[in-house]
Amino acid sequence: MQTLECDVAVIGAGTAGLAAERAARRAGATTLLIDDRFAGTTCASVGCMPSKLLIAAGKAAHAVRNAGIFGVTVPTPTIDGAAVMARVRHERDRFVAGTKASIARLPDGIAVQATARFVDATTLALDDGRHVRAESFVIATGSRPMMPPMFAALGDRALTNETIFELSTLPASMAVIGAGAIGLELAQALARLGVAVTVFDTGARIGGVKDAVVEPVLRDLLARELDFVLGVTVEARRDGDGVAVSWTGDSSGKAWYDHVLVAVGRPPALDRLNLDATGLVRDDHGTPVFDPATMQCGASAIFIAGDADASRTVLHEASDEGAIAGRNAARFPDVEPAERAVPFTITFTDPPIATIGQPAGDDSVIGEASYADQGRAKVEARNVGLARIYADPKDGRLTGAVMAAPGMDHVGHLIAWAIARGETATALLDLPLYHPTLEEGLKPALRAICHAVHAPTGSDADRGIPPGA
Amino acid sequence: MQTLECDVAVIGAGTAGLAAERAARRAGATTLLIDDRFAGTTCASVGCMPSKLLIAAGKAAHAVRNAGIFGVTVPTPTIDGAAVMARVRHERDRFVAGTKASIARLPDGIAVQATARFVDATTLALDDGRHVRAESFVIATGSRPMMPPMFAALGDRALTNETIFELSTLPASMAVIGAGAIGLELAQALARLGVAVTVFDTGARIGGVKDAVVEPVLRDLLARELDFVLGVTVEARRDGDGVAVSWTGDSSGKAWYDHVLVAVGRPPALDRLNLDATGLVRDDHGTPVFDPATMQCGASAIFIAGDADASRTVLHEASDEGAIAGRNAARFPDVEPAERAVPFTITFTDPPIATIGQPAGDDSVIGEASYADQGRAKVEARNVGLARIYADPKDGRLTGAVMAAPGMDHVGHLIAWAIARGETATALLDLPLYHPTLEEGLKPALRAICHAVHAPTGSDADRGIPPGA
Repeated sequence: MQTLECDVAVIGAGTAGLAAERAARRAGATTLLIDDRFAGTTCASVGCMPSKLLIAAGKAAHAVRNAGIFGVTVPTPTIDGAAVMARVRHERDRFVAGTKASIARLPDGIAVQATARFVDATTLALDDGRHVRAESFVIATGSRPMMPPMFAALGDRALTNETIFELSTLPASMAVIGAGAIGLELAQALARLGVAVTVFDTGARIGGVKDAVVEPVLRDLLARELDFVLGVTVEARRDGDGVAVSWTGDSSGKAWYDHVLVAVGRPPALDRLNLDATGLVRDDHGTPVFDPATMQCGASAIFIAGDADASRTVLHEASDEGAIAGRNAARFPDVEPAERAVPFTITFTDPPIATIGQPAGDDSVIGEASYADQGRAKVEARNVGLARIYADPKDGRLTGAVMAAPGMDHVGHLIAWAIARGETATALLDLPLYHPTLEEGLKPALRAICHAVHAPTGSDADRGIPPGA
Repeated sequence: MQTLECDVAVIGAGTAGLAAERAARRAGATTLLIDDRFAGTTCASVGCMPSKLLIAAGKAAHAVRNAGIFGVTVPTPTIDGAAVMARVRHERDRFVAGTKASIARLPDGIAVQATARFVDATTLALDDGRHVRAESFVIATGSRPMMPPMFAALGDRALTNETIFELSTLPASMAVIGAGAIGLELAQALARLGVAVTVFDTGARIGGVKDAVVEPVLRDLLARELDFVLGVTVEARRDGDGVAVSWTGDSSGKAWYDHVLVAVGRPPALDRLNLDATGLVRDDHGTPVFDPATMQCGASAIFIAGDADASRTVLHEASDEGAIAGRNAARFPDVEPAERAVPFTITFTDPPIATIGQPAGDDSVIGEASYADQGRAKVEARNVGLARIYADPKDGRLTGAVMAAPGMDHVGHLIAWAIARGETATALLDLPLYHPTLEEGLKPALRAICHAVHAPTGSDADRGIPPGA
């Protein structure tokens, strides 16, 4: 039996695993990167990129339908479903090729194509019969879409974010199960592309939006394009070429769809690792308990990063976590805490949802900025939505924000950077906000915070300019 | 003869004048605000807002033409020129009404409708025969489009940014004289709306873009939609219902256009003020010499703000300058310097041009980020353009940037704030940049700066993720 030896063995060659391997190697460790497929990252193959491509197509259709507002007259667009999906896959494949190229550039002998499971806390068994012994490990096996048995029984009628982009054309109708980020992004894109979409969720709120004022504003906006059936339990069964869906709860009914998109979560893919052999402490879901500053699982030599840890499951965090885990795996046992980024997630609906920093606490000061009458948004006929910014009642220092309004994917960066730097609302009002932009739409929220904490509204900031002045 | 008396007399009720009057009044001064028309601000009536409205219409037409890329099939759009212009004016008028409402909310007796000229350094004569005596003055008379006599002789065939939005419909052809910000914005919008546009300029560069690498990239991009005739002197004469234009210089030729848009600059509107009576020192163009930290003209009791001072002629600076001038006019002679914002201008072409901070110096380190292969830009089929970021060679502290690429109107705010706060490229790479966004497209520029100054590329920033990973 052959045994491979290294300082740091990384399991999973996605965004987190690739970052971990690089960081460990840069820190002087010998490394192995073990993956059963080396198929490219979740982001490039089935996540961020293909979803953004489908969203871009939906946006194009939406722009055509709205052109009349501006005096540009066009007939109803024809959606060429096959062409839409062909572009999604073509561009997606180029992104995947990019990530595969970065794998191909790894030094010889580092990539090991195999499925790994722990036999003890310092040894992996590979499915090709070999073993791997390492000083430390990084678990970066990512996540997999949850597929409850009732939906699995639907066969190819049940799609997930991992199969939907393989559709040869757009279906006529789709039931989207789950009103989270993935469900909303894909549902809106499909609806704009002419698919009759209904979004079902057991909960009453959508998008995981934690702010109780922003959420209904967003829901009303998206409901102009999507049917929502919330607060219900869904039953689904195969019916001819499609799926019969019935639901009970806050409402009840039944309908028939060509497909069901199951978007009820992407839990960590840990089941093949035989974590029982590691002795790691795990939470109720079976995920190892880890320190987010070091990515270390307990005091063990095992680190975890990316979607596998079920926390901060977005790409830039997977990359950060991989780098932290890889560096610390190389330094083990002398691990070093890293400062984590300000929490920041974007859901690329229209309007986009940006969630930044900490949720509002009981004593938070909250500043609101409505985009219903915002100058630049009105110019572009997309004056909708609401931004709520949270601040420390002592001094107006920003602590968080939930924003669902046009351009918040961009504006969110400003707020994330401001929170990272401990900026106050007063200080931000002294920084340039160009006119006319969506960014300056934040001013009412910042001023409200200043007033609430009795702080000045910026040394020379002018309070009297109306929208579009 | 009636003489009005006050502490601070503000001449001009545009953005700068309104801000100055408010600031002076807040500082405890009695004020008068003198304007011959109270017609609303330049920005709302003939500047930022109507131009952005025309740009929005052009963008709508462009989106329709590009929809096929995404699988959304539409015939060539019909541009309803009358509808385009009607929306521009309708929405513009609402913005103007907003600024007029802010004038209507002034306390009684402050607004004085008249034309004012200085009779000495402490007295104004109004055209209604009254005089105004004040402790101090703020000149905020704005700017007016330059109209050389040759173009003036064309009568109603010669348009400026002050008359173009009154067109009842779109013309078939337009010669745009001047490739500055106003010329480019309107030329591209008109071209997208089906107008045959040629842009003429005496210079060889466009958009006032100071970066010699970014400018040709931008010019090539805009030349896909616009005809540029650069480095030429233009002759124009009325010919039937239109204008015969001929040119000589780097090229020569002649062509006929329905209209000429004269966009060769907006110099200060100071001619009616009789500045000779004030004794102020003036520059070669006749503009009073002033201190940009106090807005004071020499040691006099006269302050200046907004377009009237021919410096930083954008709205947020007019507002800042008005506030500084008004506050200091109220404090005169005890004036107090203010810290001015980081220079920041945006030209809302597609791609937009953002110019921030200081131009590159001889020893500047320059980081480049091409958007030709940028992930999110590719997703949206707008992967073009270039951003160049300048930094201090000592430590990689950002000093300026010139960027012409998609989303730079948004991204520019991040760079402006970063420069204001003295951020280094290393520090910025530790701040969250979401994936996939246009913002993260800056990373190559920031990393290049880090490498050039031998600084780390962020503590846990990962260097290996390809575009779209």
